[in-house]
Amino acid sequence: MSARILIVDDIETNRRLLEARLSAEYFEVLCAADGQEALDLCVEQTPDLVLLDVMMPGMDGFETCRHFKNNPVTRHIPVIMVTALDEREDRIKGLEAGADDFLTKPLDDVALFARVRSLLRLKQLTDELRVRERSLDTEGEPVLDVEVPSGAHIAVVAVDDRTAARLAAKLPDDVAAQSFGDPRDAVQAIGAGVDLVVVDLTSKHFDGLRVCARVRSDAATRNTPILAVVDPDARDQMVRALDLGVNDVVTRPVDAGELAARIRTQLRRARYADKLRDRLDESLELAVTDPLTGLFNRRYLASRLDQAAEGFARVGEPLSVILFDLDQFKEVNDKHGHAAGDFVLKAFADTLKSQLRAIDIAGRFGGEEFLVILKDTAADCAADAAERVRAAVARQDFSVKATGDTLNVTVSAGVAQMRDGETVGQLLDRTDAALYDAKNGGRNQIVLSRAKAA
Amino acid sequence: MSARILIVDDIETNRRLLEARLSAEYFEVLCAADGQEALDLCVEQTPDLVLLDVMMPGMDGFETCRHFKNNPVTRHIPVIMVTALDEREDRIKGLEAGADDFLTKPLDDVALFARVRSLLRLKQLTDELRVRERSLDTEGEPVLDVEVPSGAHIAVVAVDDRTAARLAAKLPDDVAAQSFGDPRDAVQAIGAGVDLVVVDLTSKHFDGLRVCARVRSDAATRNTPILAVVDPDARDQMVRALDLGVNDVVTRPVDAGELAARIRTQLRRARYADKLRDRLDESLELAVTDPLTGLFNRRYLASRLDQAAEGFARVGEPLSVILFDLDQFKEVNDKHGHAAGDFVLKAFADTLKSQLRAIDIAGRFGGEEFLVILKDTAADCAADAAERVRAAVARQDFSVKATGDTLNVTVSAGVAQMRDGETVGQLLDRTDAALYDAKNGGRNQIVLSRAKAA
Ligand SMILES: [Mg+2]
Ligand SMILES: [Mg+2]
Repeated sequence: MSARILIVDDIETNRRLLEARLSAEYFEVLCAADGQEALDLCVEQTPDLVLLDVMMPGMDGFETCRHFKNNPVTRHIPVIMVTALDEREDRIKGLEAGADDFLTKPLDDVALFARVRSLLRLKQLTDELRVRERSLDTEGEPVLDVEVPSGAHIAVVAVDDRTAARLAAKLPDDVAAQSFGDPRDAVQAIGAGVDLVVVDLTSKHFDGLRVCARVRSDAATRNTPILAVVDPDARDQMVRALDLGVNDVVTRPVDAGELAARIRTQLRRARYADKLRDRLDESLELAVTDPLTGLFNRRYLASRLDQAAEGFARVGEPLSVILFDLDQFKEVNDKHGHAAGDFVLKAFADTLKSQLRAIDIAGRFGGEEFLVILKDTAADCAADAAERVRAAVARQDFSVKATGDTLNVTVSAGVAQMRDGETVGQLLDRTDAALYDAKNGGRNQIVLSRAKAA
Repeated sequence: MSARILIVDDIETNRRLLEARLSAEYFEVLCAADGQEALDLCVEQTPDLVLLDVMMPGMDGFETCRHFKNNPVTRHIPVIMVTALDEREDRIKGLEAGADDFLTKPLDDVALFARVRSLLRLKQLTDELRVRERSLDTEGEPVLDVEVPSGAHIAVVAVDDRTAARLAAKLPDDVAAQSFGDPRDAVQAIGAGVDLVVVDLTSKHFDGLRVCARVRSDAATRNTPILAVVDPDARDQMVRALDLGVNDVVTRPVDAGELAARIRTQLRRARYADKLRDRLDESLELAVTDPLTGLFNRRYLASRLDQAAEGFARVGEPLSVILFDLDQFKEVNDKHGHAAGDFVLKAFADTLKSQLRAIDIAGRFGGEEFLVILKDTAADCAADAAERVRAAVARQDFSVKATGDTLNVTVSAGVAQMRDGETVGQLLDRTDAALYDAKNGGRNQIVLSRAKAA
């Protein structure tokens, strides 16, 4: 996948060299000579990835990285910090400034491109979510502020129990670690839900990539971050691990401080993506939900009914609807107040849900009216369902906690099955007419719209 | 990226062989011996990709593919059809049955894996959207029913004008083709918006991959489908094109029928993804919108106000709010009816929008109350804005078309700036108190909550 990459380095030769190599791989390249220029370019051009030199006069790489990660416009862009000196402290400092990886010059092309591909793939996924989330929320918290909870569940997998336990001992104190010497046990535990997986790939007697592949293939664990431990000279394995979807790699001998920093980075990234997903899901849920009863809202009911009607027209599966209306609801409101009215609406919604099949689509159609769409269901069956609900409501005591009143609530309903050539509007009109008959017939009853042709 | 792949072939040796090769590349593999078993497995296990043999007794590959693509549970899964005979008619037939590609046995590993990677990458992207869309809509139309509109805009890019024109001449009659011999012109036209790009990679004097990379790197064209033309023996180029994000490849000599089928497949896929995006965006929009006025709704205002208050607490940027209330609105409703009332609410919303800055956040807070959040704005400035709106409303004739009545509408407002240590609730209470003063003071006026400490 091609992408736009920003190179930040104070030395022009370095920039030119790296630009030539990236360009040969068909990446689009931008260049900046210092931190400030990089930040400006990033806001203007939103590259997909930044290669950031550590040692620069003025604002150094660490500070530049922190700025990137604190700016809402640039914080989603992965940053690879690049340094001539491979110092443990620098590596940890870079990761803590929000860098996604820390590589040492001279950069090895194969390793660099594997890492770039891996980060771009992740970014592409969150981009789809982020673009949508933006319509909801242009602010949100900076990435560096995403809190990583202590007590994260981490599974450590290695060739045998002892090796796994030794690796687990290097994890930070505030995580809950489980170690596995058997890949099957590991896969099972991971499937049950962990926050991160550490896989040791350094033993010839254990194909840890198989575990990584399995975790990535299962829908339930597809987004679980994986950190692989490799030997420093096992470049091909590292490339392969990243290409398989491993999120990050740490080399042996494993430094506990670096391991902790990398784990924190991965947990933060995963948590950020989860938050985006949750927020989207929540908004989508709200878009289709009646806030008072938690049932579907009228707009959603209308769209599902249109769909169901199309299905009926295409394949002829019977389609029925029930329109419920709470009897003398206005009186409840007037006599006992709005709180009591709301209570009754909610209680009825609960009864409705409990009496219907999971595949039936029930929603609040407006005021005290509720619509149920029953697909693949003939009128008789729908009338039975409506009757079940009516009887349950009639049996039920609606006792309003606040006032101590016990209300006598009943419900009426009209039922109709869609006819050939009928529009949704006509179907609803017939259902409404049946409901009207039920009301006129004395309420607390179901009327089925007769199936003779219009 | 690892994934779960379903192999469908009636001959066990074929299945075992392919399984071994895929498994060596760390794919998880499922196997089925006939079409029905494949469909059942697919519904149960939802693999990420299907390799489907064409020649099978009973239900052949074409029919199986059509079933896959017509079933809502499986239709998103990419299908590669595999055949021993490379017949032009079969290839077209396969594509028309909904297959994403058509490969010839014996399968070349490098080419196969490049194609698999490419399809999996695309699938991963739409999966994120699809999972979310499912909460809205469990049905939707089958992929094969997604209509490809005639008149699609297609850009054809080749080494020179003549070659490009010759290639464009092979496109189906019902598309609007533009041909380009100059890559810069092409990139510009593509950026302005086309439905699909065809790039000829067969000339040594034109690096068409550069165009592909550019199209993929630009945010605006990232999802535009690209079809590359390659020489049949240029395997490395094909692999590279797919890895760069080219969606499909057709080999020279280009057969017009196959080209048409592949274009249709790509247009359909793109249109399907666009629909998913549109539907999500629409739902998200609805989740934050007041349906009557098109302004933001109360829930969204509350969340943005919380955010802005956090921003104020963090960096101390001044934050002000205005609460508008239409004067004697109940009278409008009672005297002129609900339609007139709705008309006035809509007209006021339009005035509000036209008088505020784009960065101000305006929404309907309830009934005839409207809230405006002004970030980085002090009380005086906010009061000026409120006064501007008040004056505009006072000047304006609200003539109700339906009745011919001209209404005299005015508005009152309370304005307040957030204080240190204040909660959002306290800020709103003060704003409400100011509004109350404005009403008591004779309406059609603005009152600014005094900035003395509480
Ligand atoms: Mg330097
Ligand atoms: Mg066969």
